[in-house]
Amino acid sequence: MQEVKVGLIGFGTVGRGTAQVLYEQADRLKRRGGGNVYIKTIADIAMDSLPPHLQGITLTADANDILDDPEIDIVVELIGGTTLARTFILKAIENGKHVVTANKALLSQHGSEIFSAAAGKNVEIGFEASVGGGIPIIKSLKEGLVANRIESITGILNGTANYILSKMSDQGLSFHTALQEAQEKGYAEADPTYDIEGMDTAHKLVILMAMAYGMKMDLQDVTCEGISRLQPIDIDYAREMGYRLKLLAISRNHGDHVEARVHPTMVHKGHMLASINGTYNGVCFRGDMVEDILLYGHGAGMMATGSAVVADIIDISRNIMVGCINRVQSLSYLPEHVQERKVTPMAELRCPYYIRFSSLDKTKVLSRIAGALGNNGISIESVIQKSREAENAVPIVMTTYEASEEAVNKALAEIDSLDITTDRAVKIRILVEDHE
Amino acid sequence: MQEVKVGLIGFGTVGRGTAQVLYEQADRLKRRGGGNVYIKTIADIAMDSLPPHLQGITLTADANDILDDPEIDIVVELIGGTTLARTFILKAIENGKHVVTANKALLSQHGSEIFSAAAGKNVEIGFEASVGGGIPIIKSLKEGLVANRIESITGILNGTANYILSKMSDQGLSFHTALQEAQEKGYAEADPTYDIEGMDTAHKLVILMAMAYGMKMDLQDVTCEGISRLQPIDIDYAREMGYRLKLLAISRNHGDHVEARVHPTMVHKGHMLASINGTYNGVCFRGDMVEDILLYGHGAGMMATGSAVVADIIDISRNIMVGCINRVQSLSYLPEHVQERKVTPMAELRCPYYIRFSSLDKTKVLSRIAGALGNNGISIESVIQKSREAENAVPIVMTTYEASEEAVNKALAEIDSLDITTDRAVKIRILVEDHE
Repeated sequence: MQEVKVGLIGFGTVGRGTAQVLYEQADRLKRRGGGNVYIKTIADIAMDSLPPHLQGITLTADANDILDDPEIDIVVELIGGTTLARTFILKAIENGKHVVTANKALLSQHGSEIFSAAAGKNVEIGFEASVGGGIPIIKSLKEGLVANRIESITGILNGTANYILSKMSDQGLSFHTALQEAQEKGYAEADPTYDIEGMDTAHKLVILMAMAYGMKMDLQDVTCEGISRLQPIDIDYAREMGYRLKLLAISRNHGDHVEARVHPTMVHKGHMLASINGTYNGVCFRGDMVEDILLYGHGAGMMATGSAVVADIIDISRNIMVGCINRVQSLSYLPEHVQERKVTPMAELRCPYYIRFSSLDKTKVLSRIAGALGNNGISIESVIQKSREAENAVPIVMTTYEASEEAVNKALAEIDSLDITTDRAVKIRILVEDHE
Repeated sequence: MQEVKVGLIGFGTVGRGTAQVLYEQADRLKRRGGGNVYIKTIADIAMDSLPPHLQGITLTADANDILDDPEIDIVVELIGGTTLARTFILKAIENGKHVVTANKALLSQHGSEIFSAAAGKNVEIGFEASVGGGIPIIKSLKEGLVANRIESITGILNGTANYILSKMSDQGLSFHTALQEAQEKGYAEADPTYDIEGMDTAHKLVILMAMAYGMKMDLQDVTCEGISRLQPIDIDYAREMGYRLKLLAISRNHGDHVEARVHPTMVHKGHMLASINGTYNGVCFRGDMVEDILLYGHGAGMMATGSAVVADIIDISRNIMVGCINRVQSLSYLPEHVQERKVTPMAELRCPYYIRFSSLDKTKVLSRIAGALGNNGISIESVIQKSREAENAVPIVMTTYEASEEAVNKALAEIDSLDITTDRAVKIRILVEDHE
């Protein structure tokens, strides 16, 4: 049986997971016709030695020992970041090697360059592990749903943020307490900015949009709002109104332009995404033929992500063995059919809104708020106004029918400038369900 | 571009959907590198003419016009049943043609014969549409999860049964009223036996087990209990205890033997499967590397199933174009590694149980029931005994800790034979969650 040799750059969590999966599943992969795949070399600048069961593998601190090794067929880049990783991947491609990576930051920012280089050298880029950890999302989009125009993408793509929101929701914790707990359990990094401010989710959304729509993979104009300013009171009101609060990646395909946004979103409790809790991820694709498909599982973790990296390695290994490189397009569409698409400006977004006002307990407050909304063409769907404690500000919570972001922003600016509220209004978008 | 010619046998719902998907998505499929695929001939014994937009296609009443046509590369069998369909598929294989089918009944009963014949002629069998309609389940099992030992399969695989259970649960309808409504809406056939008695689900489970475990695809010893005898009272108690009642396909991989069963099951409301309502399907795979993965979507329907059939056609078309037939094994494992596995006898099953007794309002009833359970090694986890109306039988509802099916059956037979109950005890198995 032909051997397929892998070089692994980066022996952190996912690198270790990948090596472990390949080691533990070696026999199964052969029995499944995946070929005789093994790691020849691991490059890591911080390692002195490998675990005993990996002793047959060469350890080096110099990635060039992999990139320049003519025996190596597939380079697996797992160092992350967008500088060295980019250099390594471009050199691997230049040297005719296939590449597998989990690097969503890199692909979402330098994807066009990388895929163009790969097409020029007729090598493959596997990146299943870049979105949704072990869930076969990319393969499903590129192959299983090949006969669909993807109408929308709606996903929970960051386990850290979802864990924090689940904790806030289930236990009434503040954002900071929930974040601290996530850090203690190892679900959040010391600097959690990328996860909680939505950038990681945005990176993944860009990759999914590229596959779904056949558009260029560049991080551009994705509106990104994180969860760090969310307050438990809004999560409580959301629950009371039948919603769960989730950090969603949302894209809707309008043909010549596409929505691309990441923000906290109210999801009706009957929607499958509302049931996704803890560190789990899930993404819903709406295809014109299949309607809604949801894929769910662990979006991170050593072994789950390792499973996705190895699935890509085997995919490429099968192609090497039978000589059919790029049997499926890396970018889902043939390079000449990958198009530029405009991202819909946020001002043009239309959706229902949840709005909370901190009002002074004065007469006519509600009518003045409703008036300002009405003047901007916004219709109120429901109102909750509960306690009336003379000393404190009174929360007035509303949901609106579908309205434009521009109109809502204008109305809220007007209301905030009145002398009837104590604090700026809190605005949270509500997920529109296409199929209802 | 090389042409790939398809012959379609059977122009019913899925046949029409397949032709429609190929027609509507023709341009997209080319842009995605799927090749120049078109239907050359449609065989159907009941059709006089084709819809106007399909006029370029030859219509015949004789399937042999497809099977004997040397120009046809892929035969799509969509007539269903296990006699003519088997004959057609075997002849197509004999004539060197690739086959795509949605026929779960046929594959689950004659899969070994069909796959063996296909291996002999080096042709492919695509069957994504046989399980879960448009959801890319088979591809995910065979490729996305290639680096996993599948530990268990737990699925809602029949939309008709799930629709009926959802209606019973949400609106308190009786089984017969819910069935009638399903029939009126076209979600249940005039003879709904296969769907409601679990056979359809069992067929699909057999196919999934074959892919997941690398075992022979034969319908054997799958325990199958349907939903026709379920009563609203048990659904209500289930809800009160935090469970939803679902018709599940369940298989757990014990290595040399595997569980294989279809029956109404109490699913904890926090489990993703509990949130799957209406005609939707969903299947949860537990892999040793990825842990739990759930795939969800429409499990039936003209366009959704057509989408899966076309995905298979494109998969094979890509292989034809680049000359890499059977790049991925039809049976997921290489034929020489497909093994026989024993199915665990039901008596050896261990799970928690929900049991409802219709007891006479006599003293010591509870203690005698508890005694019989205890004598058989069964521990009670919770009890509900509500109303005490002198005239009527009093329901006593219990959940047990994990117990063996054999012990529970023995205990219930003992209790049923006592003079303290008015009716046979109702027993419903509770889903064990592996990860808790």
